[in-house]
Amino acid sequence: MGRATEVLEGLATTTAWQENLYRFLHARPELSSQEVETGAEIARRLESFGYVVQRVGGGVVGVLTTGEGPTVLARADIDALPVTEQTGLPYASTATTVDPSGATVGLMHACGHDVHITCLLGAAELLAARPGAWHGTFVALFQPAEETAAGARAMVDDGLTSKVPRPDVAFGQHVLNHAAGVLGTRAGPVLSAGDSIRVTVFGKGSHGSMPHLGVDPVVLAASIVLRLQTIVSREVRPGEFAVVTVGSSVAGSKSNIIPDRAVLLVNLRTYDMGVRQQVVDAVERIVRAECEAAGSPEPPTFEYYDQFPLTDNDPEVTAAVTAAFRAHFGDDRVVDLGRITASEDFSRVPDAFGTPYTYWGVGGFPPERPGPPNHSPMFAPVIQPTLSAGTEAIVVATLAYLGKDEP
Amino acid sequence: MGRATEVLEGLATTTAWQENLYRFLHARPELSSQEVETGAEIARRLESFGYVVQRVGGGVVGVLTTGEGPTVLARADIDALPVTEQTGLPYASTATTVDPSGATVGLMHACGHDVHITCLLGAAELLAARPGAWHGTFVALFQPAEETAAGARAMVDDGLTSKVPRPDVAFGQHVLNHAAGVLGTRAGPVLSAGDSIRVTVFGKGSHGSMPHLGVDPVVLAASIVLRLQTIVSREVRPGEFAVVTVGSSVAGSKSNIIPDRAVLLVNLRTYDMGVRQQVVDAVERIVRAECEAAGSPEPPTFEYYDQFPLTDNDPEVTAAVTAAFRAHFGDDRVVDLGRITASEDFSRVPDAFGTPYTYWGVGGFPPERPGPPNHSPMFAPVIQPTLSAGTEAIVVATLAYLGKDEP
Amino acid sequence: MGRATEVLEGLATTTAWQENLYRFLHARPELSSQEVETGAEIARRLESFGYVVQRVGGGVVGVLTTGEGPTVLARADIDALPVTEQTGLPYASTATTVDPSGATVGLMHACGHDVHITCLLGAAELLAARPGAWHGTFVALFQPAEETAAGARAMVDDGLTSKVPRPDVAFGQHVLNHAAGVLGTRAGPVLSAGDSIRVTVFGKGSHGSMPHLGVDPVVLAASIVLRLQTIVSREVRPGEFAVVTVGSSVAGSKSNIIPDRAVLLVNLRTYDMGVRQQVVDAVERIVRAECEAAGSPEPPTFEYYDQFPLTDNDPEVTAAVTAAFRAHFGDDRVVDLGRITASEDFSRVPDAFGTPYTYWGVGGFPPERPGPPNHSPMFAPVIQPTLSAGTEAIVVATLAYLGKDEP
Amino acid sequence: MGRATEVLEGLATTTAWQENLYRFLHARPELSSQEVETGAEIARRLESFGYVVQRVGGGVVGVLTTGEGPTVLARADIDALPVTEQTGLPYASTATTVDPSGATVGLMHACGHDVHITCLLGAAELLAARPGAWHGTFVALFQPAEETAAGARAMVDDGLTSKVPRPDVAFGQHVLNHAAGVLGTRAGPVLSAGDSIRVTVFGKGSHGSMPHLGVDPVVLAASIVLRLQTIVSREVRPGEFAVVTVGSSVAGSKSNIIPDRAVLLVNLRTYDMGVRQQVVDAVERIVRAECEAAGSPEPPTFEYYDQFPLTDNDPEVTAAVTAAFRAHFGDDRVVDLGRITASEDFSRVPDAFGTPYTYWGVGGFPPERPGPPNHSPMFAPVIQPTLSAGTEAIVVATLAYLGKDEP
Repeated sequence: MGRATEVLEGLATTTAWQENLYRFLHARPELSSQEVETGAEIARRLESFGYVVQRVGGGVVGVLTTGEGPTVLARADIDALPVTEQTGLPYASTATTVDPSGATVGLMHACGHDVHITCLLGAAELLAARPGAWHGTFVALFQPAEETAAGARAMVDDGLTSKVPRPDVAFGQHVLNHAAGVLGTRAGPVLSAGDSIRVTVFGKGSHGSMPHLGVDPVVLAASIVLRLQTIVSREVRPGEFAVVTVGSSVAGSKSNIIPDRAVLLVNLRTYDMGVRQQVVDAVERIVRAECEAAGSPEPPTFEYYDQFPLTDNDPEVTAAVTAAFRAHFGDDRVVDLGRITASEDFSRVPDAFGTPYTYWGVGGFPPERPGPPNHSPMFAPVIQPTLSAGTEAIVVATLAYLGKDEP
Repeated sequence: MGRATEVLEGLATTTAWQENLYRFLHARPELSSQEVETGAEIARRLESFGYVVQRVGGGVVGVLTTGEGPTVLARADIDALPVTEQTGLPYASTATTVDPSGATVGLMHACGHDVHITCLLGAAELLAARPGAWHGTFVALFQPAEETAAGARAMVDDGLTSKVPRPDVAFGQHVLNHAAGVLGTRAGPVLSAGDSIRVTVFGKGSHGSMPHLGVDPVVLAASIVLRLQTIVSREVRPGEFAVVTVGSSVAGSKSNIIPDRAVLLVNLRTYDMGVRQQVVDAVERIVRAECEAAGSPEPPTFEYYDQFPLTDNDPEVTAAVTAAFRAHFGDDRVVDLGRITASEDFSRVPDAFGTPYTYWGVGGFPPERPGPPNHSPMFAPVIQPTLSAGTEAIVVATLAYLGKDEP
Repeated sequence: MGRATEVLEGLATTTAWQENLYRFLHARPELSSQEVETGAEIARRLESFGYVVQRVGGGVVGVLTTGEGPTVLARADIDALPVTEQTGLPYASTATTVDPSGATVGLMHACGHDVHITCLLGAAELLAARPGAWHGTFVALFQPAEETAAGARAMVDDGLTSKVPRPDVAFGQHVLNHAAGVLGTRAGPVLSAGDSIRVTVFGKGSHGSMPHLGVDPVVLAASIVLRLQTIVSREVRPGEFAVVTVGSSVAGSKSNIIPDRAVLLVNLRTYDMGVRQQVVDAVERIVRAECEAAGSPEPPTFEYYDQFPLTDNDPEVTAAVTAAFRAHFGDDRVVDLGRITASEDFSRVPDAFGTPYTYWGVGGFPPERPGPPNHSPMFAPVIQPTLSAGTEAIVVATLAYLGKDEP
Repeated sequence: MGRATEVLEGLATTTAWQENLYRFLHARPELSSQEVETGAEIARRLESFGYVVQRVGGGVVGVLTTGEGPTVLARADIDALPVTEQTGLPYASTATTVDPSGATVGLMHACGHDVHITCLLGAAELLAARPGAWHGTFVALFQPAEETAAGARAMVDDGLTSKVPRPDVAFGQHVLNHAAGVLGTRAGPVLSAGDSIRVTVFGKGSHGSMPHLGVDPVVLAASIVLRLQTIVSREVRPGEFAVVTVGSSVAGSKSNIIPDRAVLLVNLRTYDMGVRQQVVDAVERIVRAECEAAGSPEPPTFEYYDQFPLTDNDPEVTAAVTAAFRAHFGDDRVVDLGRITASEDFSRVPDAFGTPYTYWGVGGFPPERPGPPNHSPMFAPVIQPTLSAGTEAIVVATLAYLGKDEP
């Protein structure tokens, strides 16, 4: 633990540029798979710290070796969301993007990936600045497109496992809406499996005043949305984790034209593959039957996308990291992470190597006032102690594996 | 009637350019209140026929006088719709527009206003070419923005009644999906009153996997859509005309973000002002209560737009025009128009002058194969005898009032 | 018309016993096909007036002939409803019956058949008392089980057409919630066709706390009820008459047991056989598809019952009767009946004979305070002038056909 | 453990009469609070075993003391359910009862209370037969009216705590649909809190063909049922245990009468009092708002009944009993009970004394073919090894506290 203290001596200096970088990144969010400026900034900084930098599958990987020893991989995700920021922060994003329907919406780091980038860069610098304090290899991996479940897969598909050394252990970190400076860990499943389905149902267009000549897809979509509620309320075992969210329902563009289709974007979250299949089957059964009830002229279509794996923390790694956190932060700053309803594609990276991993949370909000949920247009972590805690956590977890014995 | 025959001697010549013009207009639709090229084309042609042309409230009015006598106004509407054409016609529209949400959609004369323009221009030329056959004043009025209920009002607001002579009688015509060459007339109410309401309901945004931290506006909107069905099915007297269509329901843009609002575009059609009020009250009652059921954080908003008056044909004018049609076309080509579910803002023009009017239908489809409803992306009238019948109808109705006695 | 005056001279005497009889009948309602005491009372009185009385198919028919001449049939229906009276009248019914599920409910003349019986008996007495004023045959037919659509059929099936002379014209009368003393007539369709369907849908029973082990028929039934609303609101042409009522929805008996089925009693009303078929098809389509959406273990069943024909008044008979009414009551007491949403099996009687008919309404409520609808637990016609007008109407209509020429 | 072996030497003899008694009880179910014959049979047998028997609050308590030592209370519940048996067993119940609406339904031990009675009587006999093997006091408590949550309260209200010695530990047992002969135990919450609500919503009655004159409570109830699904699917935290079941929905009795009210029997299950309150609030909010949406003429009423406490097993008692089970039955016959969705009022008994308790499950079905859920009309445990395992379990658990030291 003395090694962590040694490496963290430089924290004050690191913190200074981190806070500026954080505001810079927050104001310049980039959409999933479009992280051009973000990636360039990361690569530039990693190189300045002395890392060997590669671009892999749209992401950035920096590798630094100080000699014989194990390999630790730490991952940050770097993409932003099509959410119109409403935080009122001086460094709030004014960026916009065009959504799939062609509409303009705001763009925002509403999931805190700007925190993740900043902390991992900070840790990378601190480790690079004290090579005498550790031995082995540190891999700082910056992953694109986490929000669309595409980025980890893209890096693996681009040959990640042959481009960087196989890690012995891998870490992921996420800023959450609990108290800033507090870490949350847990062994076993901590993030759900996630699936998105684009459901298109077909009606028959008509003049708004002539419903009898058409088949109304707006009414059909409404029936489906209500019926889908019964999957969780009636079909899944009470107490079992399952979420069926229709995040988007879009049909028509004028009051007096009955459109000919409706599109529902459905999101599923489960912690068990059997339950996942049960829910998927129920969604398809309900949608098909509701189309029949409506007299729909054409069967519905189902397009699966943004599929996230389960995140299942290795018990040994989690225990080692939790112990290191407790020693460094004190017991009262290390809590049970609990099961988080959200999903992540982080695990695809260690799974590609066959490496055990742990994924922890770092709080980002005043203890007396928990933040809004991630993805909210109001999501605004306090800068400190969020950044310092997230940075220290990576250093401490890494040194639990790479730290040299005390002299 | 002999006068009609005389005026219509030129029909073959007129028909030749009409068919070309029709295809030209069909391929170049312009959205409501944006009829720039369409208006210029109309004005150019009217002038070439010898009419005194004025631009009024975004529309075009041509006036021609052949001496003492009554004044007849004939009106055509000229705007197109945001509908992506699927007719496969060689002259199909490829124009696009951007809808209020920012999405790109096709643009199409899906309501046949290109027929209306062409027929009224043809009639205007025919009348201008035979000034000796009639006496009085003919007003050819080309109205913008019928689809949004804004155009007639815009022309009146721009001083229409002081810019053209007060007509003694006014005519409107619409191409419908019955047999081409057949006219439909009826005294009394023939087109419904129409109202559009933009209803915005509020939820509370959240991550798609954390519904318990938000209020889901997608589910709220679905409940409203289903509940609105009960107005017609339970609250309005059976057999009474009332339509409540939700033409558009839009919420959210990603599967895993619960949005913070949903927007419903509701369209109402009624034939009775008491029923209209009953329906409006019921819509507001249901929306407000459903928002309470959802625990909505903010009351819904209601924005009324595109409000169409009742079209109520004058019995005397209708009788006179019907008689003239029967004499010219034969009894088997003049049928009962019936009550049409759609609405029109035509009546605002004669109402501004205090002028009695009649509004008739002209078929546009093969008798053995009725067309799709107006506003369908498949709406494609046959060119003939649609154009000739619509042109003759205006001439015949006009001469019923302006025709000189036989020599 | 003088003949009516002559026959109605006895009205004051008749009125005296009629008012008592009415209260007597009102207090002693009997359910459809169980009109034992009611039928006995009617038969006893008809015999006392001198009629030849037969019991036919559960009903009572009295025939009186005064010599050569046409035959007129007047019909009254005599059954009551399972409705718990809430009128607070001194002569309110306290009778009860047991409904199909075994529950006890009140029994009430909530449809005014007690008025019908009383008026027809009064007219029968008046005609019998003045045989010199008319010639021909009068048939007073008291029909059971109108509410279940079974009574007219039962009388026909029991040989009605061979047991009484074929009428030249037939009359039906119903008390309605408009002004007492006012008659309503109309040629053509005046009462809808009616169909009842017992729909049974199947779930899978379970403990109330274990929904995942069952299939919930309560939720299924709810989805069906809401979806059925869309038949009238979306599928039937606006302005076309169609009613789809779920009058009863019953499932389960304990809060913590999920039942294994739900039963819906659906009632349809239409004025057009094509629309009727469209609605029937839509009901079956929706129910079947909703069962599939629910994962129902067994297909639904549909049992059709209580099917009522369209009541379509003969134009000539209606004109003759209306003229007689106007002459007798004055123009201001004869109004347009309009189209009534309800149904009747009356027409099965004249249809069995091939006899033209008319069916009229007689008001039963203060003009300034229209009554509740028929079948309401508050349905309480004022005794006068309801009874006298209904009695006079039968006499006047009958004499329009049987009245001797003035001397 | 040797003591258990000694006491259970008599098991074969006990088993013989138990199997007959079980069939006898199964064929003679009695409804909650009406357990007259059942109670008499229990009392008669307890007395024959030598117990001091008292009737308390509709239940039966037998007390047996063998000298100084602790007091153990074991409880069985004895009432049956209004479920029509469909097992086809030779000893199936043919008993019937009349439900609150007046309908006749079958009566059945669909929750296995006949097993509970039989096992506890068997254990009582075995303990009484070997007084030398244990010291202390055994209280065999037979509780009425568990299904309605009334029985435990009734016994406590009738002075239970002053009528029997205060137990040091209390046991409850339930037959479940897992493998016969297998015991399930768990520390902490194992059975949910339960609440029932009778919700009455008001419409306005009308003739089925005149919906516009009424307010349809069938449609209102359907909307409520669907909306209630969103409490579990959207408002409760994913993975949190909560059940909202509408076990009964009843409105109307005829297809052509729109009734004036609907009654919903709602059942709630939760494992957390905060969640319970959240769910109760949501039910009331939704019902009230849906009544407003319907234009209901009167506010809804909510009657709470059958309220069950949480069953929260004492960790120490559970550990001691589990250890004794493992020693007696072997590790493979003792499994994790898990959290059961159902509720119980058992805990009111130990809570009245301030006594720690544990409640375990005993399987009743072939291992290869799990049974239907409790309360199913098909619920038919196999007689053996169900009865012997349930009997042994009570003896073994009791002797864990009362067994004399080995000699």
